[in-house]
Amino acid sequence: MGDLSAALALIRRGAEEILVEAELAEKLAAGRPLRIKAGFDPTAPDLHLGHTVLLNKLRHFQELGHEILFLIGDFTGLIGDPTGKNATRPPLSREQVEQNARTYQEQVFKILDPERTRVVFNSEWMDGLGAAGMIRLAAHHTVARMLERDDFAKRYAANQSIALHEFLYPLCQGYDSVALQADVELGGTDQKFNLLMGRELQRHHEQTPQTILMMPLLEGLDGVNKMSKSLNNYIGINEPPAEIFGKVMSISDDLMWRYYDLLSFLPSTEIAALRQAVAEGRNPRDVKIGLAEELVGRFHGAAAARAAVEDFAARFQRGAMPDEMPEVSIAVGAAGLPVTQVLRQAGLTGSTSEAMRMIEQGGVRLNGERVADKGLVLAAGQSVVLQVGKRKFARVALT
Amino acid sequence: MGDLSAALALIRRGAEEILVEAELAEKLAAGRPLRIKAGFDPTAPDLHLGHTVLLNKLRHFQELGHEILFLIGDFTGLIGDPTGKNATRPPLSREQVEQNARTYQEQVFKILDPERTRVVFNSEWMDGLGAAGMIRLAAHHTVARMLERDDFAKRYAANQSIALHEFLYPLCQGYDSVALQADVELGGTDQKFNLLMGRELQRHHEQTPQTILMMPLLEGLDGVNKMSKSLNNYIGINEPPAEIFGKVMSISDDLMWRYYDLLSFLPSTEIAALRQAVAEGRNPRDVKIGLAEELVGRFHGAAAARAAVEDFAARFQRGAMPDEMPEVSIAVGAAGLPVTQVLRQAGLTGSTSEAMRMIEQGGVRLNGERVADKGLVLAAGQSVVLQVGKRKFARVALT
Repeated sequence: MGDLSAALALIRRGAEEILVEAELAEKLAAGRPLRIKAGFDPTAPDLHLGHTVLLNKLRHFQELGHEILFLIGDFTGLIGDPTGKNATRPPLSREQVEQNARTYQEQVFKILDPERTRVVFNSEWMDGLGAAGMIRLAAHHTVARMLERDDFAKRYAANQSIALHEFLYPLCQGYDSVALQADVELGGTDQKFNLLMGRELQRHHEQTPQTILMMPLLEGLDGVNKMSKSLNNYIGINEPPAEIFGKVMSISDDLMWRYYDLLSFLPSTEIAALRQAVAEGRNPRDVKIGLAEELVGRFHGAAAARAAVEDFAARFQRGAMPDEMPEVSIAVGAAGLPVTQVLRQAGLTGSTSEAMRMIEQGGVRLNGERVADKGLVLAAGQSVVLQVGKRKFARVALT
Repeated sequence: MGDLSAALALIRRGAEEILVEAELAEKLAAGRPLRIKAGFDPTAPDLHLGHTVLLNKLRHFQELGHEILFLIGDFTGLIGDPTGKNATRPPLSREQVEQNARTYQEQVFKILDPERTRVVFNSEWMDGLGAAGMIRLAAHHTVARMLERDDFAKRYAANQSIALHEFLYPLCQGYDSVALQADVELGGTDQKFNLLMGRELQRHHEQTPQTILMMPLLEGLDGVNKMSKSLNNYIGINEPPAEIFGKVMSISDDLMWRYYDLLSFLPSTEIAALRQAVAEGRNPRDVKIGLAEELVGRFHGAAAARAAVEDFAARFQRGAMPDEMPEVSIAVGAAGLPVTQVLRQAGLTGSTSEAMRMIEQGGVRLNGERVADKGLVLAAGQSVVLQVGKRKFARVALT
């Protein structure tokens, strides 16, 4: 029972909601390896840290001896967007799906243990389901029930059209759980409705309903919005070591603890110890370096992580970057803003022409690196450290 | 063009609505045999005259040289009612479907020319459509559009549940039109939404949309409600000649003209001539005999029809049944009412015990036939002629 409560504590870490936890405890107590399902889009994957929140939780289950069913939703991918309204969702070919699956695996096996991961494709069972099977699935659900899903409810109320097949996708996702006999399914909090569908359909098929575990959506570098490519507030797992390192170092101290909980593989006890140390006066920057090193190490190996730490130390700490510096927030808009204007608005130069001169003279640094290009444009969604001359610093949040 | 307008006139006869008539005229003008689709339930068929309204219209198309696609909806029949709520709709086996198809053909070929009728089963193409195909079909329709269908709108407004697969059935029906490349589809007025679905899906598949032709629902013997088994106001096409004959003779004169339009194969010009004759004083009963003879002949052959006419004449005309007799309406309720009470309420006997005595003495006739059973119960939904002794008559509508 000691083991069971430790297991539950690990599973609970960072989780937003578990339904139903008592059921999960029962399944864990049974002692057999559980079948843990998580579904992924079959479109070309290019993962960022936001995606890894779920992968890390899968890894927890692996550490506890369970089997991961890494489901690639190729069935819907092969359909694409049949309305034709969405040019970005053309149907994928079988070859593309397989290529994407390989790319996925290269990335996810930096986190998951391949030995305990089964990659499965839902076309395997969906192709055999047939139109009749689809109709049978649909029969057990009502229109009213579907319209309860948050996004459907809003769109229906706002007279925005809902294509009929959108009602079928949750059924497909639910049926995947039946086909896989999933014991647990993981997903984001935005997936709750679809995850519950798996429980319902398993009941109809006289299976024990899966436990669903929802992970929160990770905030991006701005600490406010969900991490996403379109907001440019992300850390891609394939970015170069110095990029990952620098971006982690740019986040706020508050966000750092959030990232520790959701991204670090340190035991919770060690994270608690770090919090304690900071509360007692340790410089949070040093703790942040530890997180940045861990994350670079995960995706680029220990040597690269070590090098990134040293490089950072060489630039900032030996360069006497102050611990405290003015923080400003500048709205740069969708098009971004030239660095010369950012320097002026941040009060680091009196004018953009002064900013230009300083760049020409090699006196401007961005995150410790000399800026050579006077035309450099800074994009929204990042937090950077700008330096002019030896002593003028500012931490600038670009929004 | 003379031919074309004659053809259009024949097609228009009795039709409630044609969408779009101009398109139909174009198709007819092209001169090639058109593909005329009509769908039928694969459940055990036992047709009544109400069903033949549509068959008669199909026959018109055959007379004009077109091909009938007699579609048996076995795909959905093989699914049954997947909600399990409806015990009367268990899934049919392949053998049952085939047996029912044979029974159908025995009946419909009393009206249709087998040479110009192709019997098709939609499982042929629906089985191959797959879950993916079902999703693609669904993608082109919105939830809001489905909820516009009259019965769906009412149920949704009344918080009555609509199972999701009910939204898929109209798509299946529409897709049948695509698979068959139907030029025209016939259906009841209650099928308008589903018939239109065929047009939409054909457009999506870049076919010329089918013309839809809706036939009215035939009134039953009571002249008010739709003819149906459950209301017991029907004439089954497999009923014995005397039954069919007697039931036709029991309808009102007004209803007779409706039946002429929708059920008789007489040319419209001849029906117009009959109307004229009645307007000028011909006994409508004689005209009704013509209709009854035609209908018995259709389902039992000319000899049986002739015999029925003679039998009727022997009973009523030679028995001096008056042309005019009191008409009364008696509510008999769902359980029916003993003939003795009907006799009393109709004023033909002073009491039920008098009615009993008259039956014992052989002095009571029902539609010309001697009543031997004092316990006889008369059901609602029919109009009968009761006679007591030589001179007392009444036409009784049992409701």
